[in-house]
Amino acid sequence: MRILVCNDDGITAPGLRALVEVAQEFGEVIVVAPDKPQSGMGHAISIGVPLRLYPSREFGDIPAWACSGTPADCVKLATGVLGEKPDLLLSGINHGANFSISVFYSGTLSAAIEGAFEGIPSLGISLLDYSREADFTAAQAIVRELILLVQAHPFPAHVPLNVNIPKLPLSEIKGIRLTRQAKGRFVEQFEERIDPYGQPYYWMVGRFESQDAGPDTDLWALERGYVSVCPLKIDLTAYEQLNHWAVLER
Amino acid sequence: MRILVCNDDGITAPGLRALVEVAQEFGEVIVVAPDKPQSGMGHAISIGVPLRLYPSREFGDIPAWACSGTPADCVKLATGVLGEKPDLLLSGINHGANFSISVFYSGTLSAAIEGAFEGIPSLGISLLDYSREADFTAAQAIVRELILLVQAHPFPAHVPLNVNIPKLPLSEIKGIRLTRQAKGRFVEQFEERIDPYGQPYYWMVGRFESQDAGPDTDLWALERGYVSVCPLKIDLTAYEQLNHWAVLER
Repeated sequence: MRILVCNDDGITAPGLRALVEVAQEFGEVIVVAPDKPQSGMGHAISIGVPLRLYPSREFGDIPAWACSGTPADCVKLATGVLGEKPDLLLSGINHGANFSISVFYSGTLSAAIEGAFEGIPSLGISLLDYSREADFTAAQAIVRELILLVQAHPFPAHVPLNVNIPKLPLSEIKGIRLTRQAKGRFVEQFEERIDPYGQPYYWMVGRFESQDAGPDTDLWALERGYVSVCPLKIDLTAYEQLNHWAVLER
Repeated sequence: MRILVCNDDGITAPGLRALVEVAQEFGEVIVVAPDKPQSGMGHAISIGVPLRLYPSREFGDIPAWACSGTPADCVKLATGVLGEKPDLLLSGINHGANFSISVFYSGTLSAAIEGAFEGIPSLGISLLDYSREADFTAAQAIVRELILLVQAHPFPAHVPLNVNIPKLPLSEIKGIRLTRQAKGRFVEQFEERIDPYGQPYYWMVGRFESQDAGPDTDLWALERGYVSVCPLKIDLTAYEQLNHWAVLER
């Protein structure tokens, strides 16, 4: 099995290393990751600027490249420049959560969604620990379980999986649940500061606010010590709205 | 009615000016747009960098700001820094198409989706003409019709609309259709070049390939001379996959 590993925290992130270690147990690994942190890049791609691919020795003998672009660019370059389509795409392990509408902002998930566009079974994996020194031991065991699980029970290749892992020792993780995306929003606060030249600038600080008290959401599972696996659509059509108007001839 | 107008082509784009002209007819307009082109930025937001808002005289007496961030940042700043929530958000008019999976890459749509997160009725509007000198006359008439239409028959505020307008004179536009997102992908080609220092770099060139011969897609409508209005979901859960596994206790 040929496994493409990427992320959004950049090629030096410990979460990427943790993921490469597990991936290696399952097949031939190649790594294409951004040359700098790309958190919050959403599904950005580089238009109008050329891209660089720098060979990296970050993972010893494992073929690895640092890419000057976004996580989605990494996947495009990996499949386009570096040769044949991988059998599995693993993106992460992200240093921090990606539940609810974070899926729109997340670079980690954008790589998995890009993989799904290409028909590659793809997992975007996040650990609920923002620290660079996070302990990925339990997360590695979960990723191992998940790879075996998706091999035994594959999802359609156009359904990427949004995996969030609670910040708990393995013994306290209760299990793995398929979940739905919790309704919620980010309440943004803007801290205005004045620069040394007298001009204002703003720091944006978002706080997640759940608008979903229902069960079976990603948030609900994580709060109860479960790993959340939310299968995603790449067709955003709100089908239930298609009868809102008839055809309006002009 | 208070209308927030934004885009991804930047504050000087003719498409933005065309949209502001129409919005003015319906209410009090404020403009917050990127200070530089942000095409393909997807739903990127600025994390770890502060944001600037520069007052702009681009639209005379209409309050306008150029923002140093992404289209999604523009919406967050507009609602967070500049005061109360608008009654309508218009993003565009984009110089170029945004059908099928382009919705994931599009900065224009990210602003509309961000509006929907905030409960603001939001339209992302694109004209199928990539030229900076595109003629927006017909598109303006269509936007006028659409605003009246959504005022008369509002969609739920969490359903942003992806509007694509064919590159045709108004008399040749057949009408307005609610559509679904066409299945498709971008086939990327990478042109490798060598820089003056002997190092390779890559230009990415994507060509859209439809994988959907069915009717009622955005692409199908546009090819037949209709305006496509695709209502979007902000919940990406693939609900039909939620029974793929039972809960897996550890």
